[in-house]
Amino acid sequence: MSGTKTALIISAHAADFVWRCGGAIALHAQMGYEVTVACLSFGERGESARLWKEGKSLDEVKAIRRGEAEAAAEVLGAQELVCFDLGDYPLHLEQADKFALVDLIRRVQPSFMMSHSQYDPYNTDHMYMTQVALECRMIAQAWGHNPGEKVLGAPQLYLFEPHQTEQMGWKPDVFLDITPVWDKKRAAMECMNGQVHLWDYYTRVAEQRANHFKRNSGGQSGGRDCRYAEGFQSIFPRTVDEL
Amino acid sequence: MSGTKTALIISAHAADFVWRCGGAIALHAQMGYEVTVACLSFGERGESARLWKEGKSLDEVKAIRRGEAEAAAEVLGAQELVCFDLGDYPLHLEQADKFALVDLIRRVQPSFMMSHSQYDPYNTDHMYMTQVALECRMIAQAWGHNPGEKVLGAPQLYLFEPHQTEQMGWKPDVFLDITPVWDKKRAAMECMNGQVHLWDYYTRVAEQRANHFKRNSGGQSGGRDCRYAEGFQSIFPRTVDEL
Amino acid sequence: MSGTKTALIISAHAADFVWRCGGAIALHAQMGYEVTVACLSFGERGESARLWKEGKSLDEVKAIRRGEAEAAAEVLGAQELVCFDLGDYPLHLEQADKFALVDLIRRVQPSFMMSHSQYDPYNTDHMYMTQVALECRMIAQAWGHNPGEKVLGAPQLYLFEPHQTEQMGWKPDVFLDITPVWDKKRAAMECMNGQVHLWDYYTRVAEQRANHFKRNSGGQSGGRDCRYAEGFQSIFPRTVDEL
Amino acid sequence: MSGTKTALIISAHAADFVWRCGGAIALHAQMGYEVTVACLSFGERGESARLWKEGKSLDEVKAIRRGEAEAAAEVLGAQELVCFDLGDYPLHLEQADKFALVDLIRRVQPSFMMSHSQYDPYNTDHMYMTQVALECRMIAQAWGHNPGEKVLGAPQLYLFEPHQTEQMGWKPDVFLDITPVWDKKRAAMECMNGQVHLWDYYTRVAEQRANHFKRNSGGQSGGRDCRYAEGFQSIFPRTVDEL
Amino acid sequence: MSGTKTALIISAHAADFVWRCGGAIALHAQMGYEVTVACLSFGERGESARLWKEGKSLDEVKAIRRGEAEAAAEVLGAQELVCFDLGDYPLHLEQADKFALVDLIRRVQPSFMMSHSQYDPYNTDHMYMTQVALECRMIAQAWGHNPGEKVLGAPQLYLFEPHQTEQMGWKPDVFLDITPVWDKKRAAMECMNGQVHLWDYYTRVAEQRANHFKRNSGGQSGGRDCRYAEGFQSIFPRTVDEL
Amino acid sequence: MSGTKTALIISAHAADFVWRCGGAIALHAQMGYEVTVACLSFGERGESARLWKEGKSLDEVKAIRRGEAEAAAEVLGAQELVCFDLGDYPLHLEQADKFALVDLIRRVQPSFMMSHSQYDPYNTDHMYMTQVALECRMIAQAWGHNPGEKVLGAPQLYLFEPHQTEQMGWKPDVFLDITPVWDKKRAAMECMNGQVHLWDYYTRVAEQRANHFKRNSGGQSGGRDCRYAEGFQSIFPRTVDEL
Repeated sequence: MSGTKTALIISAHAADFVWRCGGAIALHAQMGYEVTVACLSFGERGESARLWKEGKSLDEVKAIRRGEAEAAAEVLGAQELVCFDLGDYPLHLEQADKFALVDLIRRVQPSFMMSHSQYDPYNTDHMYMTQVALECRMIAQAWGHNPGEKVLGAPQLYLFEPHQTEQMGWKPDVFLDITPVWDKKRAAMECMNGQVHLWDYYTRVAEQRANHFKRNSGGQSGGRDCRYAEGFQSIFPRTVDEL
Repeated sequence: MSGTKTALIISAHAADFVWRCGGAIALHAQMGYEVTVACLSFGERGESARLWKEGKSLDEVKAIRRGEAEAAAEVLGAQELVCFDLGDYPLHLEQADKFALVDLIRRVQPSFMMSHSQYDPYNTDHMYMTQVALECRMIAQAWGHNPGEKVLGAPQLYLFEPHQTEQMGWKPDVFLDITPVWDKKRAAMECMNGQVHLWDYYTRVAEQRANHFKRNSGGQSGGRDCRYAEGFQSIFPRTVDEL
Repeated sequence: MSGTKTALIISAHAADFVWRCGGAIALHAQMGYEVTVACLSFGERGESARLWKEGKSLDEVKAIRRGEAEAAAEVLGAQELVCFDLGDYPLHLEQADKFALVDLIRRVQPSFMMSHSQYDPYNTDHMYMTQVALECRMIAQAWGHNPGEKVLGAPQLYLFEPHQTEQMGWKPDVFLDITPVWDKKRAAMECMNGQVHLWDYYTRVAEQRANHFKRNSGGQSGGRDCRYAEGFQSIFPRTVDEL
Repeated sequence: MSGTKTALIISAHAADFVWRCGGAIALHAQMGYEVTVACLSFGERGESARLWKEGKSLDEVKAIRRGEAEAAAEVLGAQELVCFDLGDYPLHLEQADKFALVDLIRRVQPSFMMSHSQYDPYNTDHMYMTQVALECRMIAQAWGHNPGEKVLGAPQLYLFEPHQTEQMGWKPDVFLDITPVWDKKRAAMECMNGQVHLWDYYTRVAEQRANHFKRNSGGQSGGRDCRYAEGFQSIFPRTVDEL
Repeated sequence: MSGTKTALIISAHAADFVWRCGGAIALHAQMGYEVTVACLSFGERGESARLWKEGKSLDEVKAIRRGEAEAAAEVLGAQELVCFDLGDYPLHLEQADKFALVDLIRRVQPSFMMSHSQYDPYNTDHMYMTQVALECRMIAQAWGHNPGEKVLGAPQLYLFEPHQTEQMGWKPDVFLDITPVWDKKRAAMECMNGQVHLWDYYTRVAEQRANHFKRNSGGQSGGRDCRYAEGFQSIFPRTVDEL
Repeated sequence: MSGTKTALIISAHAADFVWRCGGAIALHAQMGYEVTVACLSFGERGESARLWKEGKSLDEVKAIRRGEAEAAAEVLGAQELVCFDLGDYPLHLEQADKFALVDLIRRVQPSFMMSHSQYDPYNTDHMYMTQVALECRMIAQAWGHNPGEKVLGAPQLYLFEPHQTEQMGWKPDVFLDITPVWDKKRAAMECMNGQVHLWDYYTRVAEQRANHFKRNSGGQSGGRDCRYAEGFQSIFPRTVDEL
């Protein structure tokens, strides 16, 4: 790996990266990571109810969602926001689209990747996205794909927190303290004008995760204080020199 | 936590700690951890077939197994070997025995704990041991148990690798590189004269885990070299400041 | 919701709705529900062995199966039978086919939906059907899909009972007493001339489920009598004002 | 069943019933249910850290916890609070204790029962409690246990929400709207002076569950409003006449 | 192994062996196996409702149940029926009871063992029985338990079919054709005068399992005929020279 | 079935059949089975890193891999190696490709089939292959697919051992003693010049599986000797006349 660490967020819809890992983005950006956010769609059809109720056209909805995503990415300090504009509900990638995602993965050479939970009966785009993320991670590791390019190593794939968490078989194995960047996450959430009802919802998620952070870092015998946190589930095992 | 880090291994039978986490013990001891090994029994009835075939008495079997365990613990650099001598096949703890284990947990104040897999149809002592380890961890955290004593924080409980791994529902989420201390683990295994057939078996386990270490630390794109490793499954989530 | 309640059965092959939820259809029809049955295929290739052995052509097989399905639907009191005629073994839906199913879902605005189990290694059409049912349910909820149409609410998706039940990971959480309409279900089954061996098989299934109904409604201390029942597994949680 | 409906809450420690199902208690009490709360211990050793830090004795801790539980039960409108005083961390029931719990179950003849999640590595008392609840439910159904007594029917056993929800394998299948009795639940929580930090934590839990209630009762197409809710997981299937 | 093959059925209550594996007993007895049936209790408290309703005393109930079990065992051709008479609802084994069961296991030296499913929320005696069966199998393998006795090898433990099958997480991996001995199983069931309602229930179970036998032995392309079958789940892997 | 028994291995990439079931192939070939190996791709892009590092072209890589696979198949005594040449990383089958695989299945009429584990986050080709194998098995059973052809019966589908076994949810239920043909498996592995590091890795796998074979065939009380084995997981239940 070169000097700069990098991370890649693979988000089915434009706003997912804000609610689900906005804190991780801001925190790692602040630590010097170059964080790239890939939005495969704008969530224009399925996650923009308010705009459709207002009578916006598809192009308008997409433009507004893109604008909000760009604003949020900037607030969070993301290095780059890549919009694939592939459509949603359903999201579908042809092979060329997958190879474009592989190109991005190879360009970023992420220290870690993030995507959705592996099961989500409410939102099949989410589980499809993760399946594609694993497929593209595999392709990016292939020496025979665009020979000569730098192949991908073995970055972790973290699954960020879904909505209606307990229905998804999602079990967090790591909590990240995002207290130092909370203001940025809240500000990024407030860029999402069509989903005002989620601002407080995900603020409460962060507060609950902070409680879990404290419990698991020491509990009633001196757990470290933490006001806001995010949880993630790891797909792959870690490799360490000390437990 | 005070200056010195500590670890506590909770082993149903005298030899489990050697095969399953001898590398972790030696490595952390070398890093300055004070590692305590608790053997709840000597494995005298169920894991000493060769000695019984030779016609040894129960006391002889226990003495021999104790001697082997002490030798192995010393080779590994464990700070202390605590033999509870509670009998095996089946292992059973009365409340007083559990409280003695709680006393040990509190005295050690471990940075991390280790025990068996949560399911083992071949060896019910193993799954019982882990159930008791969780129960005693909980009691050690209770402010009302022996008020005035320092209560336990929230140490991780790692589950070490069972025999016939795939039958146990055990899934390692962390691989530890034990190459630097491999000679010690091998030497400790060779203290177990009654189970010679396992020396090479667990050497191969360590070689396979090293392959997995390499794969998960980078794979064909520069994974770190590693010749021997051990795998562990975590019960509790981690709390971190960087992913 | 308007005055009339509705239900939508999504069946991979023409006869599935008879064996698996014929009682639920008849019972709800009798209660005033308008029940729509969607058959994505006629099961012409994979579930019509007798007809092929008799030397029928594909068109003949389809016509016969359609006729049987129509007769069964009428006996059950279904409001409508919609045959998509998409072929089976394998069943496959292109995006246009999915959107046609979405159109149907929106037109029906079902109070509840039904489809197959989520796992079926014997019959991949079945698990594919449920995956598509979830995807189309999601699309039907999207305000940006055919803006202006009435979007779907959040109907339950019940999974009806597969064949070789225990191999499918299917666990019923609700039993429905179909005793009052049993004659209709039996008559509908007898419309399926190519699968005579299943008439008694699914009669026995209904009798066993009735035993389970009785056990769970009171057991030996006064469970309600029930002679025929059907079991279903729910995908989504319920929302209630009383437990 | 007689005219009055009843419910029985089986709580390992004195305060569990408040955080986990206080709303269900208050709501059903308001509907005319006679709700009995059984606390097997006061949580005196393991869930009263603040009192121990203040130097209280065991008897003082128990008395204070009993007082708080009584106050909370009264606020919630519970018909009766039964304190078994069996000790905690660990909780253990001898056969006579189990039979006493069976006596209570038979006396109450509950329409439904409630207890803890089936897995909880942080708190083995909780999973033990549920195991015992199932065992005692079975004994209460036995015609040969105290012959002549009215045997138990087949009441549902709901598992209420654990702390650190996602670690427990707990998946809610029913959400209950507790908005009408929220003030009572909050007031009951405020009776628990030793766990002030949990008042807001469980207020947020109720707000998140309300979001899930709305999503599952209709979502963006007209889900019913709900400000506070509780979630439960059912052990047994339901028996119904309409889906 | 000596010339005669043997099998050991470990049944929590007196009648379980009839409903759940009566066919396997009769079939293997007919092939020359010596089949031993161990009933840990008579099911006198929990599975004899009719007798209690008739006003029988505990001793009368036990005597009647013993008589029925003996008659059924004889019809099935079991070599021996061993009644432990330990009581039921709940069943509990002290260490001496476990060692008596170990003695039996060692005396029989079974080619295979059978017991209940590993999960049963309706009947905790059943899951407890299987847990004890695994524990005693382990003890019987220990060279240090009663040194000098012939230790146990590694017999399979089959889990027979529970009632309300799908609620128990039980998945059969082997179906046994019991058509040749069906008359014996039916006759044995008819020895159970207190549970007449189960005669037809378990006849239907056998018919459904026969359908599954046919499906898995060839299906519509020539599966072997079979009219009655039983299903079992294996705990341990098989060792073979041909797949 | 005709006189000769047959088997069909369905391998995503050219070398999988060697590492994962080379022993099963050689053993059954030696017993007179006609074993057909289907390689859906050569693993040219994703599993030929050494060749790409040497600067080979795609055609060269494929030719080399084909040559190695042919050599290995011959050493193992396979009747036939069928190379579909569909590309890898990702592997994808159009309907015509699936029907070609169905043709092969019908031509072979296998006594048993083999393919990959059902979950593999490292290699999505593997899990996709098994999904397709199940789909094609189903189509091959359909009387309406190419009417007049002999339809498939109900062969077992064994899942062979993945790499990084414990991450895949793969649990072997049968161990096959391959000691008699070990030399052939080792020789076949040594045909794979690009993956020298795997020769010893999979030798160790075979040695560990032999240990498990011994344990499960009798353990310390006379388990049969075995030096090399392979493990498999069965998808479907077996049908037997003796347990």
